[in-house]
Amino acid sequence: MAQEALNAQAEMNNTDARLFVIGTELLKGQVADGHGKLISSELSRLGYNVKSIEILPDDGSVQTSMEACLSDTDLIIVTGGLGPTSDDMTRRAIAEVAGVELVLDQGAWDTLYKRVGERIHGANEQQAYIPKGFTVIENPLGTAPGFMGRAKGVLFIAMPGPPRELGPMFLERVLPFLTSLSGHESQGRDEYSVFLTPESKLEELCVKSSRPSCTWGDRFQSYRISLYLGGENRALMAKSLSDDLGPGLMVPGDLESWDLLEQALLERGLAISTAESLTGGLIAKLLTDRPGSSAYFKGSAVTYCNQAKEKVLGVPHSIIESYTEVSCQCAQAMAEGAMKLYDTDFAISTTGIAGPTGGTEQSPVGTVCLGFASRFQESQSAKLVFQSYGRDSIRRRSAVAAMLLGCFYLSGGSVIDMASAWQYI
Amino acid sequence: MAQEALNAQAEMNNTDARLFVIGTELLKGQVADGHGKLISSELSRLGYNVKSIEILPDDGSVQTSMEACLSDTDLIIVTGGLGPTSDDMTRRAIAEVAGVELVLDQGAWDTLYKRVGERIHGANEQQAYIPKGFTVIENPLGTAPGFMGRAKGVLFIAMPGPPRELGPMFLERVLPFLTSLSGHESQGRDEYSVFLTPESKLEELCVKSSRPSCTWGDRFQSYRISLYLGGENRALMAKSLSDDLGPGLMVPGDLESWDLLEQALLERGLAISTAESLTGGLIAKLLTDRPGSSAYFKGSAVTYCNQAKEKVLGVPHSIIESYTEVSCQCAQAMAEGAMKLYDTDFAISTTGIAGPTGGTEQSPVGTVCLGFASRFQESQSAKLVFQSYGRDSIRRRSAVAAMLLGCFYLSGGSVIDMASAWQYI
Repeated sequence: MAQEALNAQAEMNNTDARLFVIGTELLKGQVADGHGKLISSELSRLGYNVKSIEILPDDGSVQTSMEACLSDTDLIIVTGGLGPTSDDMTRRAIAEVAGVELVLDQGAWDTLYKRVGERIHGANEQQAYIPKGFTVIENPLGTAPGFMGRAKGVLFIAMPGPPRELGPMFLERVLPFLTSLSGHESQGRDEYSVFLTPESKLEELCVKSSRPSCTWGDRFQSYRISLYLGGENRALMAKSLSDDLGPGLMVPGDLESWDLLEQALLERGLAISTAESLTGGLIAKLLTDRPGSSAYFKGSAVTYCNQAKEKVLGVPHSIIESYTEVSCQCAQAMAEGAMKLYDTDFAISTTGIAGPTGGTEQSPVGTVCLGFASRFQESQSAKLVFQSYGRDSIRRRSAVAAMLLGCFYLSGGSVIDMASAWQYI
Repeated sequence: MAQEALNAQAEMNNTDARLFVIGTELLKGQVADGHGKLISSELSRLGYNVKSIEILPDDGSVQTSMEACLSDTDLIIVTGGLGPTSDDMTRRAIAEVAGVELVLDQGAWDTLYKRVGERIHGANEQQAYIPKGFTVIENPLGTAPGFMGRAKGVLFIAMPGPPRELGPMFLERVLPFLTSLSGHESQGRDEYSVFLTPESKLEELCVKSSRPSCTWGDRFQSYRISLYLGGENRALMAKSLSDDLGPGLMVPGDLESWDLLEQALLERGLAISTAESLTGGLIAKLLTDRPGSSAYFKGSAVTYCNQAKEKVLGVPHSIIESYTEVSCQCAQAMAEGAMKLYDTDFAISTTGIAGPTGGTEQSPVGTVCLGFASRFQESQSAKLVFQSYGRDSIRRRSAVAAMLLGCFYLSGGSVIDMASAWQYI
């Protein structure tokens, strides 16, 4: 019922929106808020006027804040305070402000029961209650659903706080709905995954490649940026952006670099092993984060010291002596050693300098050598020099680059050609 | 956080602060705010209770927002809206709320004149005006000085918005002043790191162990919970909580499990290697996240398949055949194999079932065997069965448990005794 009621409302062009972000940890400065930027940028693109973003604790004070702005606000979005340990604050505050009671939503209860079983009794059950007359927004990634509804002339939307739940719910459920409300033609929107590109550089390139009737939005994640393009000319804009970045750094869809590698391995029925110095087990960790990875991942030799590179992987002492351990020669020998040790079809390796210390004039911090070996192809290797944004970032980007180049290597390409065409790493 | 905790937190911190961040670009989502996290984390450290962070446009609406909170706020910090193009919004809003006029500060005028010369006439000159009775905060990095002063029982502090001006001004000028003011340091607050305990369980235990004049607050992180105890009886409360949880799960300070392991290794001058099946490289990744880890970490054999356990680590085929790979026998042989392969003093190993599939009646998802070997001690192992909160969580908790038990093993303890006394894993 509620969906139709919502759609029946007047058009909402140029309407005033306010955003409330609930999270005590944000007020203690333990975490920086990312929801404000994500939601306000999308709302602004749709022509909403965002009047404030208010970060509040998980103590119900959002109720007072919402009441104070009812008269000059058309859209209120609240994130967080919906979980079972939150004492139900956001849910209750919105019901109070809307002047309705909280009622059990049977659909939400059934979904929750499927997820948590008998643990539904107790605190968990609160999550199936929503303000009367409101509509549930399903949350496939967590226990707390969102909800939305109209009351006192205001459209209220509540979403869970954890970023991995909020992001998809906002972008895939709420945003299309708001777009339809604002009277914007729903022209669709394409999602891309962008790798190895600094956020500020991507934004600069978006401005540069921007075309009439094109819109864009991005979401920074640990190992990539999700980029959303909208409007009639979005395919052209995507092409021009992708050309700017370099080969393989912008792929359609919602994909991590390890998704691409997994796909390449499963398609070809290949087993992989890794040899990791610089990344210290990170690639193995990322591949085995996935259930079912034992189908293609056999193991990794993390060889942090040079003795281990020689003893465990059989890298010749002469290679390390002549070229140092941060060399294409060493990376290639490491990959070959891992392939042999784990008896796999394919192997990738990483060696380099993550810093903050250990850089030399010849090999500054950020210098990374990646090796690739296969039962069916000549070994290859590539040397990259990442701009240094810190140890973690260098390790993460090295893992991503190794996986992207690994896919290209499996398809028969030259990893040096690919890597040297990357523009902004 | 539960309501009791928040109430306690509010009492514990006797000064209520609110932060207003001015910047239209923040509301359009073009830039993410960083001031909120910086300022709120430092204020929280000093014991201030940050009640809200509000992002507002450069249109003077901060005046209404400040007026609305005067009665329940002791400290108001405003950033931004001080520059010559800002139409003087923040300066005027604070003067209005404080009920005083704006007056020329000759010192600020002189400083500005040195900086911009004759360009001082016009919009620039506004920047030398401050609310009457307030004090200028010099800004060596920009044209707009900050200012602070007391009015209507509230301490107002205004600082410029550009991060390269705000950061130094806040950290070098404002923060030392607030520290001297608050006297919060003497009130005392102890921080603990709590491992392997579900957040909801810890909160329940805090309520149970709570004592008169004790306060607590917590922060959930990926690999532990930071717990903050305040009040006179906090030492007793800490003891009772720690007893409830079990040995080694609550340690004083801001420490990750890998900090504890690093410390144990460095103290004893030992080198470590790991053998990881279940954790797939995660322990190696966590240890090598730290710069300088090469001093004690040599490498890890990630052996995801059984053939690799046998071939790389030398686990006897008969052990896997008789006891399966998820057994204490296998874990112990893996640790011994890693120690030998990497030629280290000490090794830890993990094998188990992270799920979601692969569980059996005998070894359900969450069953984990951890092995420990040392050049100087008998090998040991322990079997744990974690409650299943998903694959990631089981892998993370296994890594933490292996590191905590590893420390205990190095100190000569029995890992089985320790693990079996853990109450809520």
